Amino acid sequence: MSQKGTQSIQFEEAPYIISSASVVGKKEGEGPLGGLFDMVGKDDLFGEDTWEEAESTLQKEAATLAVGKAGIAKEEIRYIFGGDLLGQSIATTFGLMELNIPLFGLYGACSTAGESLSLAAMTVAAGFGDQVLAVTSSHFASAEKQFRFPLEYANQRPLSATWTVTGSGAFVLGKKRSKARITGVTTGKVVDFGIKDSMNMGAAMAPAACATIYQNLIDFDRSPDDYDKIITGDLGYVGQEILIKLLREKGFDISKQHMDCGIEIYDSKTQDTHSGGSGCGCSAVTLSASFLPQLEKGTLHRILFVPTGALLSTVSFHEGQSVPGIAHGVVIEHA
Amino acid sequence: MSQKGTQSIQFEEAPYIISSASVVGKKEGEGPLGGLFDMVGKDDLFGEDTWEEAESTLQKEAATLAVGKAGIAKEEIRYIFGGDLLGQSIATTFGLMELNIPLFGLYGACSTAGESLSLAAMTVAAGFGDQVLAVTSSHFASAEKQFRFPLEYANQRPLSATWTVTGSGAFVLGKKRSKARITGVTTGKVVDFGIKDSMNMGAAMAPAACATIYQNLIDFDRSPDDYDKIITGDLGYVGQEILIKLLREKGFDISKQHMDCGIEIYDSKTQDTHSGGSGCGCSAVTLSASFLPQLEKGTLHRILFVPTGALLSTVSFHEGQSVPGIAHGVVIEHA
Repeated sequence: MSQKGTQSIQFEEAPYIISSASVVGKKEGEGPLGGLFDMVGKDDLFGEDTWEEAESTLQKEAATLAVGKAGIAKEEIRYIFGGDLLGQSIATTFGLMELNIPLFGLYGACSTAGESLSLAAMTVAAGFGDQVLAVTSSHFASAEKQFRFPLEYANQRPLSATWTVTGSGAFVLGKKRSKARITGVTTGKVVDFGIKDSMNMGAAMAPAACATIYQNLIDFDRSPDDYDKIITGDLGYVGQEILIKLLREKGFDISKQHMDCGIEIYDSKTQDTHSGGSGCGCSAVTLSASFLPQLEKGTLHRILFVPTGALLSTVSFHEGQSVPGIAHGVVIEHA
Repeated sequence: MSQKGTQSIQFEEAPYIISSASVVGKKEGEGPLGGLFDMVGKDDLFGEDTWEEAESTLQKEAATLAVGKAGIAKEEIRYIFGGDLLGQSIATTFGLMELNIPLFGLYGACSTAGESLSLAAMTVAAGFGDQVLAVTSSHFASAEKQFRFPLEYANQRPLSATWTVTGSGAFVLGKKRSKARITGVTTGKVVDFGIKDSMNMGAAMAPAACATIYQNLIDFDRSPDDYDKIITGDLGYVGQEILIKLLREKGFDISKQHMDCGIEIYDSKTQDTHSGGSGCGCSAVTLSASFLPQLEKGTLHRILFVPTGALLSTVSFHEGQSVPGIAHGVVIEHA
């Protein structure tokens, strides 16, 4: 039986992460992980005319690189699970169109990297596809235009604000043996703590991360020590503090294991990124460039990867709705 | 082996559609299918203050009704696959939050009903969930505000325009025997014919519907006569004509079998809906209220249900991008 507890799956034949690729913008290339990414853009337009087309190009490049690294033709990819942050997921539509592969479009805000890896792993494990691609992206400029203000407005950002990562991460999952595999998933629920500040996404997402991590530990009957790292997507410094506190109240101390992709990707002291990085691309490129190679080498043995999403739009925000969160957990192990 | 051809799955143990529910607005209630829906709103606000909250309420009501009809508690639903047309899928977030069930958020424009049924069926067939819910919605007023003009602007609509259905359809899939089951799926690719008219979605989506139907017939080695009906989502009168022509050019005549939910749901002569209905809700409520009961009775034996989506946002449209389409095919049979 592959269902585990109330919200998790443990794969009997765990799918492998055959390859992955990360493509990022200039600022991400200048950050602490800069040397690890597969491709760093000279500017953030990637040769295109608009920020949205630039984001589409990020996805296309990451997907093409990942498929190339897997040593297969794109026709051998059965499905793509893809998403981004933009309204009606246009970065994904226009980015992945040319690949000509059946597409399941996803939306889970910045948790989409976890959602896409979960569904791709489920699809491979069930035998519905031998190779499946999971792709997500975000772009600082297209996201600012979508959610906040156009860059030209030059608005001030509070210290709790995060900086949307310009980047796309792509992962080829399959049955072919590699050095890392997805052994389980814990799918998140929408969690609403009534946060109404669109400039403090960390606080909005921390309760969802807490709920998913807690349920993962319960469903798999594990303690935080069973993971080398528990890695959230983009809580940033503000959200990290809240997450650790909330999980302590529920009886688990993850302060030793916890890392956050949003904290890792920038040097907040020199890069003026305030609370940290965010966006679907943030967790995807950090997993691909930093954590996955450590899992493949065996310097990490088992991680819980938990991309976190803040579920809002400008419409919901302006209508006075709160900002609920969602987080999808993926257990990845050295193989 | 459950993989079939290049884009399809044939389920070895086909999941059942245990129950379904449809909730619609006033205009849909006055249409030819009016008497068949489970719930018709007195006005289109459903007791809420905004159109977006009204759409969320549609989802909540449809989901709750479907779960109730299945005779199970909501805690017995393992996952929801849900989506809508609004930026960042806010109708889904706020509509399904209170159900407190793990959520996979989807975006496939008006094809989302097919995408959600496909992934729900795959999840049940793989043993990852005993009961899984697929929910989608659209709302005329929230969609006009999102994609075109606020209602207060009272713009003129060309005859090729469709009318977004106010409605939500929900389906509980599971292993428990019922009178209808999903025996296969054909997942669509993004297809771009370069259409740039956001008031002619039928023309934008017809090539995608053609591609998916063609591939379904090839993958399953079937002719159109192997289906009692081939039912697209919301091509309308304009798209229907194009679809039949395109498939004829590829060697298949579906003129006898073809129906379109967008054509069925309104009386275009008296309801001023021009080319027909559209939206994620259009195909979902028409399947739930009209076609599924016929499959359960056995007056229909096997249908190919093909919700169709137009992949655009106001940003992509204003930046001069084309409107690509996508269509997801679901084979549903009397059991």
